[in-house]
Amino acid sequence: MAKRVGVILAGCGVYDGAEIHESVITLLALDRAGAEVTIMAPNRNQLHVINHQSGEVSEDETRNVMVESARIARGAVRSVAEVKSDELDALALPGGFGAAKNLCTFAIKGAECEIDDGVAKLIRAMHTAGKPILAMCIAPAVAAKALGDKGIKAKLTIGNDADTAAGIEALGGTHENQDVRGVAVDKENKVISTPAYMLGQSISEVADGIENAVGELMKMI
Amino acid sequence: MAKRVGVILAGCGVYDGAEIHESVITLLALDRAGAEVTIMAPNRNQLHVINHQSGEVSEDETRNVMVESARIARGAVRSVAEVKSDELDALALPGGFGAAKNLCTFAIKGAECEIDDGVAKLIRAMHTAGKPILAMCIAPAVAAKALGDKGIKAKLTIGNDADTAAGIEALGGTHENQDVRGVAVDKENKVISTPAYMLGQSISEVADGIENAVGELMKMI
Repeated sequence: MAKRVGVILAGCGVYDGAEIHESVITLLALDRAGAEVTIMAPNRNQLHVINHQSGEVSEDETRNVMVESARIARGAVRSVAEVKSDELDALALPGGFGAAKNLCTFAIKGAECEIDDGVAKLIRAMHTAGKPILAMCIAPAVAAKALGDKGIKAKLTIGNDADTAAGIEALGGTHENQDVRGVAVDKENKVISTPAYMLGQSISEVADGIENAVGELMKMI
Repeated sequence: MAKRVGVILAGCGVYDGAEIHESVITLLALDRAGAEVTIMAPNRNQLHVINHQSGEVSEDETRNVMVESARIARGAVRSVAEVKSDELDALALPGGFGAAKNLCTFAIKGAECEIDDGVAKLIRAMHTAGKPILAMCIAPAVAAKALGDKGIKAKLTIGNDADTAAGIEALGGTHENQDVRGVAVDKENKVISTPAYMLGQSISEVADGIENAVGELMKMI
């Protein structure tokens, strides 16, 4: 039977949503590994909309995280609040600022951030069920928040940025430096992470790291 | 010296813009082949905005093709009208409805379609300079229109859909059936094409076809 992997997206675009390259490379690596994928997102408005051509906030625009995530999914995605851990064998979270703006608010509030209820519940339920979780780029902040609030100290990497690493630790995680192709593996908590565009200088480097991380995830199921 | 490949995007999302998987897989395959990539798009509004969650047109929304393409590029893209053929060694056009709605209007007008001026000029200039052009999915319609209007009969594939193939021929191209991993190679005109999501049932199949096509493109430079 195919292994069932849930992918939580945070919109569509690196500055206000899910990082598109990371999301597509994850979907491709999972499909090539024979996984059956369920794509989901929180049904809420994005923190804001960034014009990716200018880098400026589009003050008059509002976009919904689920509606924009559906662009990457090529059609309707599920509301993360409706997905149960017994439907899945593993969970994957690509990065992009959306992970730290829409799934949780780490990008603006750091250690004082809030996390989306549906996202938090699913991550905790997967952990309780002993099912592995992969977080890429800045998405380890989401995992650290969801698990740290329950006293679970997961080992995670966001690469090697000292301030961000300190933020992960303030949320209750333990940080491990990794390079762009490296993967941090917390065997006890079944949490896997890779820096992706937190360090990647090219799409190839990022793909190498994500392919390594998805390989570790599939082995851990 | 790195081979310089231009990539023309048509927005960000299969139903109203560039197909995201095809675009990212193309960028990854080019990077892994050592190419130096210039991403560009026409500076014009999209034909419309489709809510990818519901499939409906968002009547009150307007989005710019260049601004949305910048989401896939992770930052500013160039206006296609400003890019000259002598800056490039090859050109690649991912598909998605945006290719047939924003680069040309094949999706709504078929053989009577118009084509964006900048896109048409760059495709024709590349052909005149003997530089190869890769078109994926429905983007062969863009190439057929740009070249067919000048009496250049390029061999192209959009897979095996009879109506769409007839449309390609009505634009002045010659259609060749191919499967999802197949590549149509017009050696004389240096035009390469692959069906991608015109036939693909999975992201892996589409990636296989695009990787084959990018391989042919790099050989032809």
